[in-house]
Amino acid sequence: MLIVQKFGGTSVGTLERIRACAARCVASQREGHQLVVVVSAMAGETNRLISLANGLRRLGAQGSESAGKGPYVAASGVGDRVHERELDQLVSTGENVSAALLAMAIHDLGGDAISLVGHQIGMITDATYTNARIQELRGERIWSEVEAGKIVVCAGFQGLDAAGNITTLGRGGSDTSAVALAAAIGADVCEIYTDVDGVYTTDPRIEPKARKIAEITCEEMLELASLGAKILQIRSVAFAMRYGVAVHVRSSLNDREGTWIVSEYRSMEAPEVVGLALDRNEAKVTLTNVPDTPGIAALVFNRLAGAGVVVDMIIQNASRDGRTDLTFTVPENDLDRSVDELKSLDIPGSGQLEIVKDPDICKISIVGVGMRSHSGVAAKAFQIMATEGINIHMVSTSEIKVSVVVQERYGELALRALHAGFGLDKAPELEA
Amino acid sequence: MLIVQKFGGTSVGTLERIRACAARCVASQREGHQLVVVVSAMAGETNRLISLANGLRRLGAQGSESAGKGPYVAASGVGDRVHERELDQLVSTGENVSAALLAMAIHDLGGDAISLVGHQIGMITDATYTNARIQELRGERIWSEVEAGKIVVCAGFQGLDAAGNITTLGRGGSDTSAVALAAAIGADVCEIYTDVDGVYTTDPRIEPKARKIAEITCEEMLELASLGAKILQIRSVAFAMRYGVAVHVRSSLNDREGTWIVSEYRSMEAPEVVGLALDRNEAKVTLTNVPDTPGIAALVFNRLAGAGVVVDMIIQNASRDGRTDLTFTVPENDLDRSVDELKSLDIPGSGQLEIVKDPDICKISIVGVGMRSHSGVAAKAFQIMATEGINIHMVSTSEIKVSVVVQERYGELALRALHAGFGLDKAPELEA
Repeated sequence: MLIVQKFGGTSVGTLERIRACAARCVASQREGHQLVVVVSAMAGETNRLISLANGLRRLGAQGSESAGKGPYVAASGVGDRVHERELDQLVSTGENVSAALLAMAIHDLGGDAISLVGHQIGMITDATYTNARIQELRGERIWSEVEAGKIVVCAGFQGLDAAGNITTLGRGGSDTSAVALAAAIGADVCEIYTDVDGVYTTDPRIEPKARKIAEITCEEMLELASLGAKILQIRSVAFAMRYGVAVHVRSSLNDREGTWIVSEYRSMEAPEVVGLALDRNEAKVTLTNVPDTPGIAALVFNRLAGAGVVVDMIIQNASRDGRTDLTFTVPENDLDRSVDELKSLDIPGSGQLEIVKDPDICKISIVGVGMRSHSGVAAKAFQIMATEGINIHMVSTSEIKVSVVVQERYGELALRALHAGFGLDKAPELEA
Repeated sequence: MLIVQKFGGTSVGTLERIRACAARCVASQREGHQLVVVVSAMAGETNRLISLANGLRRLGAQGSESAGKGPYVAASGVGDRVHERELDQLVSTGENVSAALLAMAIHDLGGDAISLVGHQIGMITDATYTNARIQELRGERIWSEVEAGKIVVCAGFQGLDAAGNITTLGRGGSDTSAVALAAAIGADVCEIYTDVDGVYTTDPRIEPKARKIAEITCEEMLELASLGAKILQIRSVAFAMRYGVAVHVRSSLNDREGTWIVSEYRSMEAPEVVGLALDRNEAKVTLTNVPDTPGIAALVFNRLAGAGVVVDMIIQNASRDGRTDLTFTVPENDLDRSVDELKSLDIPGSGQLEIVKDPDICKISIVGVGMRSHSGVAAKAFQIMATEGINIHMVSTSEIKVSVVVQERYGELALRALHAGFGLDKAPELEA
């Protein structure tokens, strides 16, 4: 098989762990597989590099007297883009270091490896520094090294724009590097090695009965983003879905099967509900007495979009006397800013418009592609929560997800009740 | 003017110092100069990276039991070349970090800069990892950025081989990067910023009366390698000589003129003697009773060359009774190995051949292009040493150098006597 293996920052966090990764690579090659490996920076290294850049900024903020040369000129907007370019040139070195060290460790174990960085990899992106999008992989070098029998160790997280500047793919970008590489070279599987066993039915810190999911679809992973984001960059899942890459998230500390993230369930009937996510970082805004005329909602949400606020759920109640209520959720950090934006908004005929904000809510998402064929998931969820006496503030449903907003202090209780109610603690697990 | 400025590891050793370098760059640009800057890794960073690689090697030497996977296979000769490739991929990141940080610091001070690394610089070398030779500079990117008014900050020390692998130019290679860049883009001057004021007439730790040299030729610098090697990579001087680059070695801590390393003296008569170097890292080997027949010397020195021993001075005494003595010096570290090689040598008719080794010697070099027109420098040197009662073991002369070997314990005394005798403590210094 042609396998892409990706090792995260914790997995290559020490020389001993790098050596353990190397042993795993050599073992895979000896089993007859062709191997392309993608590595993150050693744990802590990216932060160290960023703190160097921040340290410089702080020196700058102290003014020019300390440097004793000319007046200090504050960085302009253009300067920030320029700064971001340099930040990418800077932080990408962290992955280069891990790649070279892993290649060395593989040699030490008698394997044959070569590390590739930057232009050698040929990952072409747009020029959005610090958060670039992959456009193309010019993988000739990778292919020729794979064909020569080498384990090809690629520095993750980085690309090149068309002009040859180094770009990076955002935090966790090595996952996306790995999946993109797997797609481009037609790998049979992309293995994401991390420090957890796989994706769980919900956060085990809240529900100890949460169990490892054997198989989950990309669609479901995308809907469970807040659950999955601790494990892999969610963008990589979108990539996997688009290009049909089979992703296997597993632990670098043992040989057990992890979670397969696939396009379609392979072996069994799709479960009704596969997992639950709890998102505490939401806040609710309600506009009451909004004139029920066309264009008001557009006015509101255009203003918020213009301010860079990402609105999540939106609910509009039935109209009464030509007035309605508009309720929506925003990230908790953006709550005050959102309210300020709306206060400055001139809504025609909104003499009595009132803005009510509520930061003390949370969102629970119930996800499963099985909902498409199982009716009544929402009704069952409402029943479970009613039994616990939990009031539901908002509901939003999509084809494979039911999201409910409840008071924040009931979030964990609701999650555990739903976990038990949908039998997530009992579902059979595929064993390797 | 088009200026190349090179900042060494100490000059960029902390964020504060990087900011001071940035202030210097911005000031130069405001004076109307075009600027290409070459940086070393922050002091200590290259060693940190190498120690990571060495740490892996040590883990490897502990055998495979610790890793729990397959048998440990020791690195072969091929492995070492592969290891060296990875070492270059690894250590080159140190310069990338400084380059990005310096570019950021320049922005913070209101200047316009861009950092370039690896393939962006276009420094093409051969594939001799860890000690590559520069072959060509493809400087289109550098030029276009300079023309756009940017301060171009290049990561020093590194190049690319024809296949796009990263190579490095050996310890101190950033000096050679800088001079090569200056040559390729036709810079008016290559300024090497370091933590000393310039090149001194001799080591000031031995002779406190040593004074800074205002101007010295490349030829002289090459002959004073052991003096200059603490200040800049001697290979860079050969480059400067070959391409006629004017090099200005100066302190990054003040604005005083340093030492100009030039092709020919510009302003004044060449001094008789410009500087003295003391080299303690030499050892003497004498072969006595060598048959005075053609081919013996070739046999001896071919064997040593084959063993990688660099022989410095070679003296053959006049023959007596068909036998002669052959004396030469080698680096002290190679002394025992050299003697072992020679013992295993089968010299025809050398029944009575005897090998005498002496590690307790040192070499003093008296250098000046003025010797070409001033006769009697050697005689004057012998007189000075005779006055001090110092016995001379070996003498070797070239067009611009007289080297003498003396007992190690007389080395410093001899150096000080020669320094005074040739008036090096009194020569007028050009002030900026």
